[in-house]
Amino acid sequence: MNYNTLFQQIKQKRSFLCVGLDSDIAKIPAHLLETEDPVFQFNKAIIDATAPVTVAYKPNIAFYESRGVAGWRSLEKTIAYLRDSYPDIFTIADAKRGDIGNTSQMYAKAFLDTMQFDSITVAPYMGEDSVTPFLEYNGKWVILLALTSNKGAFDFQFFEEEGVKLYEKVLTKSQEWAGKEQMMYVVGATKAEMLAGIRKIVPDHFLLVPGVGAQGGSLEEVARYGMNSRCGLLVNSSRGIIFADKGADFARRAGEEAAKLQREMEQLLQTYRVI
Amino acid sequence: MNYNTLFQQIKQKRSFLCVGLDSDIAKIPAHLLETEDPVFQFNKAIIDATAPVTVAYKPNIAFYESRGVAGWRSLEKTIAYLRDSYPDIFTIADAKRGDIGNTSQMYAKAFLDTMQFDSITVAPYMGEDSVTPFLEYNGKWVILLALTSNKGAFDFQFFEEEGVKLYEKVLTKSQEWAGKEQMMYVVGATKAEMLAGIRKIVPDHFLLVPGVGAQGGSLEEVARYGMNSRCGLLVNSSRGIIFADKGADFARRAGEEAAKLQREMEQLLQTYRVI
Repeated sequence: MNYNTLFQQIKQKRSFLCVGLDSDIAKIPAHLLETEDPVFQFNKAIIDATAPVTVAYKPNIAFYESRGVAGWRSLEKTIAYLRDSYPDIFTIADAKRGDIGNTSQMYAKAFLDTMQFDSITVAPYMGEDSVTPFLEYNGKWVILLALTSNKGAFDFQFFEEEGVKLYEKVLTKSQEWAGKEQMMYVVGATKAEMLAGIRKIVPDHFLLVPGVGAQGGSLEEVARYGMNSRCGLLVNSSRGIIFADKGADFARRAGEEAAKLQREMEQLLQTYRVI
Repeated sequence: MNYNTLFQQIKQKRSFLCVGLDSDIAKIPAHLLETEDPVFQFNKAIIDATAPVTVAYKPNIAFYESRGVAGWRSLEKTIAYLRDSYPDIFTIADAKRGDIGNTSQMYAKAFLDTMQFDSITVAPYMGEDSVTPFLEYNGKWVILLALTSNKGAFDFQFFEEEGVKLYEKVLTKSQEWAGKEQMMYVVGATKAEMLAGIRKIVPDHFLLVPGVGAQGGSLEEVARYGMNSRCGLLVNSSRGIIFADKGADFARRAGEEAAKLQREMEQLLQTYRVI
């Protein structure tokens, strides 16, 4: 999916919501555990209930990998379902991979080719040749970690050389590898005011913003500091939507929570004159 | 496996060889492709041929993940075979994971609990709470990326604050999270002379050194700058051993290449009076 198609989706749905499929089998409704693939059934129901207001889905790969072969199968079925039933929705493999060239190539093949995700999150520590193999697939995206939303972000991301912080260096340096048509950045919502500075370095790029909801960030602040004329934001919510209710009613409740966020987003898109 | 047991293994085998199981299905001998699980059959033969001179095996997870469910099954069978047949050999999941706490927990569960690897490689970018979930398993290790062997290492790892480089900061800071009994570091062999400086920061830790062989590092230099009184090194070779021969004779030739490295290692262990 290209930059403009993604923007069209945002305008059409009046939403920049990404739903995180952190589908922990220990937390999904009990009645699903009797089905052959409970996690896929859960995802399918969540997707169907939230798709009208959602522009991106982001399976968190750890939650699948932790279940071995069975988890991998749930993941493959989920992405196939998304591709077949909702081909216009952007898909993100939240995998945070990154390794030497021949190894990143293998990860790229797994997520972007075999499973056909639109994008994958990548960790920057190993530099250019760990990232560029993911850029070799036409129309696919790298979403590079810049400033994450967790406490440990302060350990290294704020390391500073001559007034430039490491996360700023990541933003600058990586623009040599790809432009706004193939690269996005992860920027945590818990540090929303820093989005203003980040927008000076990457004014046009899309930013994937986790940490709204369970991780404590404010949607309004994210929009105030981070929105650009093409929206430029995908804001993720995981637990607040998918585990809004843990009973038989989980899908309807997820749809409601997603719709609530969409209404806030629509307002913000209007406030900042994107739509 | 604890620090002393690992050192005993090194003394007993007179070797600090780690064999990297980068078992690319496109490169394994053709006759294996007729078996039910070619990659597992390949790994099993490589392991049996190299185990007498090997102290650690390191499956490169990307090469399994890229094959989806089938690859994951090959990985599970490989680690189960190692645990059952060679319980004294140290196992490394070369996964380079690292994410927010609840997600790192899931990766830790997958590799250290379900599959029972002894250790996992972890990327440091997201800081403390992305690493510590891997330290919650007794007797299991984190192998943290410090200075990698690839070209891209120069993009961020040499970022410098007040005379301290990022990879040095990673070495220092991470010692607050675990000591030499649970933490090792990845240090690339292509920058062997830097091992002298690294040893000043982590004199007693084990270092996992990739990049000898195909990636161009010299074993002798690694030992000169990096060996300590308990050896303190696991030196990895992947392609140079496992793809030494691509015909019917692959396992015997892998064993020969491993034995050749072991003889060099034995000599270095004697030179530096470790044995």
